[in-house]
Amino acid sequence: MSRADRLLALIGERELDQLFVSDLTNVRYLSGFTGTNGACLVGREGRIFFTDFRYTERAEHEVGEEWERPEAERELVPQIAARMSGRVGFEDSKLSVRQLARLEAAVGEDVDLLPAGDLVERLRAVKEPEEIELMAAASELADDVFRWALERGLEGRTEREVARTCEARIRELGAEPSFPPIVAAGENGALPHAEPGEREIGSGELVVFDMGAELDGYCSDGTRTFATAEPDDEAREVYDLVLAAQLAGLSAVRVGASGKEVDAVAREMIDEAGHGDHFGHGLGHGVGLEVHEGPRLATTSEDELRGGNVVTVEPGIYLPGRFGVRIEDLVVIEAAGYRNLSGTPKELTVVD
Amino acid sequence: MSRADRLLALIGERELDQLFVSDLTNVRYLSGFTGTNGACLVGREGRIFFTDFRYTERAEHEVGEEWERPEAERELVPQIAARMSGRVGFEDSKLSVRQLARLEAAVGEDVDLLPAGDLVERLRAVKEPEEIELMAAASELADDVFRWALERGLEGRTEREVARTCEARIRELGAEPSFPPIVAAGENGALPHAEPGEREIGSGELVVFDMGAELDGYCSDGTRTFATAEPDDEAREVYDLVLAAQLAGLSAVRVGASGKEVDAVAREMIDEAGHGDHFGHGLGHGVGLEVHEGPRLATTSEDELRGGNVVTVEPGIYLPGRFGVRIEDLVVIEAAGYRNLSGTPKELTVVD
Repeated sequence: MSRADRLLALIGERELDQLFVSDLTNVRYLSGFTGTNGACLVGREGRIFFTDFRYTERAEHEVGEEWERPEAERELVPQIAARMSGRVGFEDSKLSVRQLARLEAAVGEDVDLLPAGDLVERLRAVKEPEEIELMAAASELADDVFRWALERGLEGRTEREVARTCEARIRELGAEPSFPPIVAAGENGALPHAEPGEREIGSGELVVFDMGAELDGYCSDGTRTFATAEPDDEAREVYDLVLAAQLAGLSAVRVGASGKEVDAVAREMIDEAGHGDHFGHGLGHGVGLEVHEGPRLATTSEDELRGGNVVTVEPGIYLPGRFGVRIEDLVVIEAAGYRNLSGTPKELTVVD
Repeated sequence: MSRADRLLALIGERELDQLFVSDLTNVRYLSGFTGTNGACLVGREGRIFFTDFRYTERAEHEVGEEWERPEAERELVPQIAARMSGRVGFEDSKLSVRQLARLEAAVGEDVDLLPAGDLVERLRAVKEPEEIELMAAASELADDVFRWALERGLEGRTEREVARTCEARIRELGAEPSFPPIVAAGENGALPHAEPGEREIGSGELVVFDMGAELDGYCSDGTRTFATAEPDDEAREVYDLVLAAQLAGLSAVRVGASGKEVDAVAREMIDEAGHGDHFGHGLGHGVGLEVHEGPRLATTSEDELRGGNVVTVEPGIYLPGRFGVRIEDLVVIEAAGYRNLSGTPKELTVVD
């Protein structure tokens, strides 16, 4: 069943006649189109793909035969509006207030526009085998770059230099960084979103290293915390605690588990050790065409894990002004447990 | 006068009490904040900047003292809503329908939420001297990379290879590409948004080469069309026509001119030569923190040029299945005419 066929089932559940898909990542997922101006209108009566003259030729290559592809102006709304009828859902989590106002002004009287965001995102959360293989390849490539970076050493180099050379290496290997790598040493490791700076990595420091690659649009995401000399007892204790919480989180990952409950397994372990206040983010998130997508593993998550979900499991402990530890794997939920796409070892590695 | 002070004048013109700024580029422009979760609320009563704990430390460095910086949760809306009062404008061209619905549910009864997009964009269109110097430096850097690329030759290399090495070179020089460079040879040059592919650049071809650099957030944008051997008469004629139209467009650029009228000067020249149908895009657009911003030079533009605007002037002629020519400069509108930030020569350059 094609992605558009599966979407049609969700459209039916919502008692809609059509869904207007405007988010470009969702458009890409459904139609294959990678340009920057395109939209889909999907309903039982047909599947229509809209783009303007600049992308007509690209759309011919990328968008399948099952899509009708009318010629459209650069401002797509009037032509899309003309093809709408009945109860039409739109992506309220993405469409701007102004775009909706334009659409409302352009549609016929027989059209009801109804908020219906996140339907394509629901499909995207369950990966097909080809998507999983791309993500596995992206993750393997990032693992290669972790190994390559460690061979070159960390101590005495700046965070920025390490991050930059890794980005360049990812590109040399034929991918793109899925986000700018985070390399955060010592007290910078306690900032969950540190930007790699001119700080030189010293001896005996913990280095939080968060990196991913993107292949054909699909992202990987993985974090390791390395040490530049055998760490002191407290750092070692925190490291071991994060690793234990990460393994506990992984063991809770299964079809049917709730995102809340998987998060709780790792969080309770960290709470009980007295570090609850130092783990200020969710345990994990889905990854795919975007680095952050559904489902979420978090205290506020309402998601339930399904086979084909690809999620991170990434507890962290951050001691302000001192150091941080985060360990993150990327895993595919399978009928019998999970498959771990992250291959870099997790025991504490001491790098020169 | 600070940017927030100037914004306050526009807020007053619209008879608003406050403006809620949610677009991250606008937030950066106003406050200096470069993280991925932040918002501003600006009014006569005060200037408030919101971000979550992940970015608290970054905000301390980046966001000036004149901003109040309350501690906020990751979901910023409730705290922002609590600080709203009276007639509050929101950025309708950016805020999603769902975000607005959440905001409406969270604000007090005394709050009227009113669409008021593009106010910060109006400020951004008029650059300050420091912004212009960053863009001049970015443009000079891109000019260096054009020269560097030509020294390495075009013929016999693939489009993608040329594009990739230029991206890498931009990064080596300490900047980022402001967009993925376009290198489009022969018939690919007739696709206005070609993606560099595995096509080898042949002899006697025209190569459309569109590239920009980004320095400290500010973008440059420039296009040249090179030849890999002396082109035939028709190609030479089209090149000369585009160059004449580009020079005519430049000469029409002045304070007080309308975007429509500058576009028309170049377009009429191309129309009269019988190529009107082959120039399917606007003459130019503003550039700054984004590669595409205001004002627009186009048949449908309602903008009037002001001192401090930075715009591209980029006519093109595209003959489907054969070749294309585009020549693009980046210029600052000044009291007496303009200053051209693009330094790469425009006479047709034949490259080996």
